[in-house]
Amino acid sequence: MTFSNIMDSNSYSGGVSTDPETDKLIQARAHLLGPAYRLFYERPVHLVRGSGSHMFDADGVRYLDAYNNVVSVGHCHPHVVAAITRQAETLNTHTRYLHDGIVDYSERLLRTVGLDQVMYACTGSEANDLALRVAQMYTGARGVIVTRDAYHGNTEAVTAISPSLGGATTIGPHVRAVGAPDSYRSGAEVAARFLADIQAAIADLRAAGHGLSCLIVDTFFSSDGIYPGPTVLAPAVAAVRAAGGVFIADEVQPGFARTGEAMWGFTRHGVVPDLVTMGKPMANGLPVAAMAARSDVLEAFAREVPYFNTFGGNPVSMAAASAVLDVIADEQLMANAARVGTALRDELARLATNHPRIGDVRGAGLYVGVEMVTDPDLKTPDRAGAHDLVNAMRERHVLISVCGAEGNVLKVRPPLVFSMDDVDWFCTEFAGAVAELPV
Amino acid sequence: MTFSNIMDSNSYSGGVSTDPETDKLIQARAHLLGPAYRLFYERPVHLVRGSGSHMFDADGVRYLDAYNNVVSVGHCHPHVVAAITRQAETLNTHTRYLHDGIVDYSERLLRTVGLDQVMYACTGSEANDLALRVAQMYTGARGVIVTRDAYHGNTEAVTAISPSLGGATTIGPHVRAVGAPDSYRSGAEVAARFLADIQAAIADLRAAGHGLSCLIVDTFFSSDGIYPGPTVLAPAVAAVRAAGGVFIADEVQPGFARTGEAMWGFTRHGVVPDLVTMGKPMANGLPVAAMAARSDVLEAFAREVPYFNTFGGNPVSMAAASAVLDVIADEQLMANAARVGTALRDELARLATNHPRIGDVRGAGLYVGVEMVTDPDLKTPDRAGAHDLVNAMRERHVLISVCGAEGNVLKVRPPLVFSMDDVDWFCTEFAGAVAELPV
Repeated sequence: MTFSNIMDSNSYSGGVSTDPETDKLIQARAHLLGPAYRLFYERPVHLVRGSGSHMFDADGVRYLDAYNNVVSVGHCHPHVVAAITRQAETLNTHTRYLHDGIVDYSERLLRTVGLDQVMYACTGSEANDLALRVAQMYTGARGVIVTRDAYHGNTEAVTAISPSLGGATTIGPHVRAVGAPDSYRSGAEVAARFLADIQAAIADLRAAGHGLSCLIVDTFFSSDGIYPGPTVLAPAVAAVRAAGGVFIADEVQPGFARTGEAMWGFTRHGVVPDLVTMGKPMANGLPVAAMAARSDVLEAFAREVPYFNTFGGNPVSMAAASAVLDVIADEQLMANAARVGTALRDELARLATNHPRIGDVRGAGLYVGVEMVTDPDLKTPDRAGAHDLVNAMRERHVLISVCGAEGNVLKVRPPLVFSMDDVDWFCTEFAGAVAELPV
Repeated sequence: MTFSNIMDSNSYSGGVSTDPETDKLIQARAHLLGPAYRLFYERPVHLVRGSGSHMFDADGVRYLDAYNNVVSVGHCHPHVVAAITRQAETLNTHTRYLHDGIVDYSERLLRTVGLDQVMYACTGSEANDLALRVAQMYTGARGVIVTRDAYHGNTEAVTAISPSLGGATTIGPHVRAVGAPDSYRSGAEVAARFLADIQAAIADLRAAGHGLSCLIVDTFFSSDGIYPGPTVLAPAVAAVRAAGGVFIADEVQPGFARTGEAMWGFTRHGVVPDLVTMGKPMANGLPVAAMAARSDVLEAFAREVPYFNTFGGNPVSMAAASAVLDVIADEQLMANAARVGTALRDELARLATNHPRIGDVRGAGLYVGVEMVTDPDLKTPDRAGAHDLVNAMRERHVLISVCGAEGNVLKVRPPLVFSMDDVDWFCTEFAGAVAELPV
């Protein structure tokens, strides 16, 4: 059994520590939560406080958070906390009553998406589970096309379209996987190959009697290994639509200005999806998610299938989500992601010229993949090197993780308030950690 | 198409109003959220503030909340709000780092449940989706037994075990439904019939090749029509276990002291489940849910299937959930539910003696069902009467809804801080509304 995905190649069921208090906490946790609960890093971190792009452990040691996109506008942002508090002390209830919050936020959100309706859930998994059902109802077909190392969530239905999970899970008989557009290992032909793979998957789903319901992709191919370009989606989406399917953009990771170029990853590909799912950074840590939709695609499902999400779209969730949009605008976080992200990638690329095991540095905005290889010519994935680097960085108090089928791509995805000083800090420690890698 | 379940028999896609501002809000909402978003009451309420068991509309009118169990310890309880604020301004992150909050809360929660491990999610739907997968992994079988008008959530997998949804949904081929223990229409034979139905379902699932994975029930049979007793579950659970299946108690509605007799509905039946799911009132409105488990039932799934819930068990969720347990204990809400609930049922039963259309008053604690019938001897369900009463009560500023297959059971399920004054208020308006029912 392998755990190759974003969640598990840098996770440990136990973890070692040198400190009896921490060991006690690790043991209590394992005892109470069971083996599904895994920890980042060989020596797990015990965090007690966060602020901006920094976190602090129980001993007061400061860590640079270069991983967490949920707290997209920064840990404990006071504007978001104030919004949560204000609404929590005023009213929090479900959507069977009228409330201004959901209407105001929906108008604001949809203006950025370019679709006309939205439904709320609490997690990206729920949003994707819903989107699959909407697509199946609209098309009358069940077949789904995903990328080969996709991750779309944890319900039964979305686990079946998440090949990256591995372990004792298997993708469903109605699912076909295509290779992500690997810009590192492919040349100009990557877009043509992606399209050809989609066409073959459509034909195969039809031959198997499933038909084509949808293509669903993370528009930054996060779990596959972070592929910001080239922009392969427009021809693929055209082929999917020509075959009667719909396109679902999973924006749970690339959404909300992360890439520095647009609010949404799909914009970078020049496509407008039929359904868009979003989650993680939507409310800076409160469980808030949504599915935006073309109303004509949504209509049959919404009329004929009763769907109600008790917590979805509640006033506190909407207040927090609205505050996140405020901060993205007020602090110009998209521009910050572009500027700081470029500086980060430039410096990493400079370091890479002296370190052949850094095969590739890629990304957009504050979403950066650093691919480790054992041989720069053969581009052989270096899982062990990536593993060692992640743990070396942790010892240097800089938090990152890995992604990709081989777990050899460093995933650098900090809060959008990451500063130029943070870039310096990151690169100083990264240079040190890389220099200490065994050759 | 019929919407017979708890969510939809008292919900409207549009709603009428007499006030142009409200009409505008209704229209904007319909436009932005689409037809899935339905509203309670013929004249929807536009709420802006809540406190304890009361809510206030945009004109400052006070409503008695006799329906909402999510805000179980009272709307905007200051202790819960303070806990949320304190943790939100300190740290909110995922469970791949060590944090005391989840360990402390898990210890506290599991002590009340009597099982040894717990996993966290954000909604009851997610918890039930997870529990089904755990049960299937443990048993190697896929068959599920539910009650005939059960509702267990909104993901694809749990929709397939929720016959109450109706509409364009259908229960899965691996699902068998048994009648709930209808204490109103059955006599002493109700437990024997429930057991016989379970045994028949087991045999049928085996014959169809699905095998038996689990029996899952809401231990108060909420969606079926609210059946507090007799306590039919012990022999049924024994039969399920003898056939190799597990028992999942869905405590999303009856849990957290609602029934006044115990923290959990299953305790009233004298059984300890293999898996327990919980949600709605767990954090008084934040999206928090969990699945408690016998560790030996959970183990294979937890080891072999990667499962991670980004928001599940985060520090803010745990702080809110912990504050809810504080309030339940400090304000003795279980005892309050018992005392106030008894007074409420007694008074309703007294009113029923003069009103033949009130066929039955039943419940435990602050979970009360009032079954409306057109003929007390034939016990013919009175859907129209229930509908009229719910809307008449809304006009009197008292909020309730309906449940049951025929939508004829008034669902009275207020916050646990409901007071004796609230009972007076409720019964005064109820007497008035019943008196005005057309004969």
